Amino acid sequence: MQLIEGKKLSEKLLTDLKVKLSAFSEKPKLAIIQIGDEKPSNVYVSIKEKTGKEIGINIDTYKYKTGDFSFVSSKILELNNDKSVHGIILQLPTPGNEIRPLLDLVSPMKDVDGLTSSNLGKIWHNETQEFLGATPKAIMFVLNHIAENTNISLREFLTGKNVLIINHNILIGKPIAGKLLNLDATITLAHSHTKDLVQHMEYSDIIITATGKRIITQENNMHLKQNVVIIDSGYSINNGIVSGDVEIESVREKASWLSPVPGGIGPLGVAMLMQNTYEAYLNSRDKNH
Amino acid sequence: MQLIEGKKLSEKLLTDLKVKLSAFSEKPKLAIIQIGDEKPSNVYVSIKEKTGKEIGINIDTYKYKTGDFSFVSSKILELNNDKSVHGIILQLPTPGNEIRPLLDLVSPMKDVDGLTSSNLGKIWHNETQEFLGATPKAIMFVLNHIAENTNISLREFLTGKNVLIINHNILIGKPIAGKLLNLDATITLAHSHTKDLVQHMEYSDIIITATGKRIITQENNMHLKQNVVIIDSGYSINNGIVSGDVEIESVREKASWLSPVPGGIGPLGVAMLMQNTYEAYLNSRDKNH
Repeated sequence: MQLIEGKKLSEKLLTDLKVKLSAFSEKPKLAIIQIGDEKPSNVYVSIKEKTGKEIGINIDTYKYKTGDFSFVSSKILELNNDKSVHGIILQLPTPGNEIRPLLDLVSPMKDVDGLTSSNLGKIWHNETQEFLGATPKAIMFVLNHIAENTNISLREFLTGKNVLIINHNILIGKPIAGKLLNLDATITLAHSHTKDLVQHMEYSDIIITATGKRIITQENNMHLKQNVVIIDSGYSINNGIVSGDVEIESVREKASWLSPVPGGIGPLGVAMLMQNTYEAYLNSRDKNH
Repeated sequence: MQLIEGKKLSEKLLTDLKVKLSAFSEKPKLAIIQIGDEKPSNVYVSIKEKTGKEIGINIDTYKYKTGDFSFVSSKILELNNDKSVHGIILQLPTPGNEIRPLLDLVSPMKDVDGLTSSNLGKIWHNETQEFLGATPKAIMFVLNHIAENTNISLREFLTGKNVLIINHNILIGKPIAGKLLNLDATITLAHSHTKDLVQHMEYSDIIITATGKRIITQENNMHLKQNVVIIDSGYSINNGIVSGDVEIESVREKASWLSPVPGGIGPLGVAMLMQNTYEAYLNSRDKNH
């Protein structure tokens, strides 16, 4: 089994980005809107702020209390029109689900998390979308990395492969399913209502999981196909230790590749968000010249 | 095995619609744009024209030669702004794939075939979309009909069910997959690159197929799950006889329900298009009052 070294790969991406950014006098700006005071959101925001500072992307964070939705709406519309702002994200998780109607207020041109229905529609239409969100972009990067290591194109690698996606939210499962379908993979979208998940595991060549629960363990690893590729994007903290959906030891003999937690998709996602902000910045320059 | 009587069900829907429409002095108008002279498109257009005439929906058909794309673009924009027009469809199939960039020109408010990326994005975002296209709407109608016959809600019927969708185009597979996922089904999207289709058939509680090829036959019906629900939306003509993807005799012992071809989704789809046009008409009246 080969491990994806997400930390190392992301450091290389960020270094390259820093060099590119040093050629510009003006810095790109990413606006982060945070609602409530959820601990994971605080952690994610501080990682983004720190990374932005290191590579030369300005990050403005706006914090709101739960229930401040009219203020948040006005702020989003203001940021949409502010030419000095290139990317806008609503930090998830927020308390409750009330954030959903706000997502579509973000201008698709600044939607660097790819969470507007416009960007999702273009993915499923197989059109060029403005942005693919950080996590699906990191997953595509990892799959491409594996294909490159096998000396084949991403499409050749994916064509006809059975891909099991255990997550169906708009951050991960829905965009990644559309992208992989466009590259001729057969896709199955599973979730908490899915019965007999192991039955689906049995025929899967690639498994992408992001549930925050233990999905692959010593108890069910006999249902994995030999040489399966596993991308873990789960996140949970047990007794103070960060872990993913996959018990690493349980897949060592069966998997050909594993993107583990921690150190896989997580750090790559931060790099992808910075990459998207840089692209939004370049697009806005193209428009103004 | 119970058969869906699509013809009878669609006649009832159209009669109800005719009664509703008779209450209005102005008639709804559907604009059909046809590019090229494909025989199936000619057939579909004439069925729509005939049905519209019978129930009281005006249908204007505009025919263009292949390559007339600038004329077609202008016509779509003109129809978008024409308040007497309530629905606009681009009749498929057309020669080649050049029609794709034209689909997104249709105003989502008049997109009664549900083919804009905006409408598809809202389906996958689990938001209320303007329109669900004729075929996926007919499939949802059939599934609802089966649920009603079993005295449970559509969501109860679908939750946790393994649904195999053998089609991944924007007319059928992509919208129906999004709709069923929103109702908590586990969905698999298969297509011409899928390997071992029978393996996917084995665990499927519901199979929706629309390929124009023979998918379920006496040769592979042993791979069907007992009591599977099968919705055939395939269409091909062999020796002058219209047939679907499913050999009806081959599923009689295994399936609990079959929506057959001919006489299933086809006639229901025409009724759904008329229903969407009526809804577009009502929406435009609401806006003007």
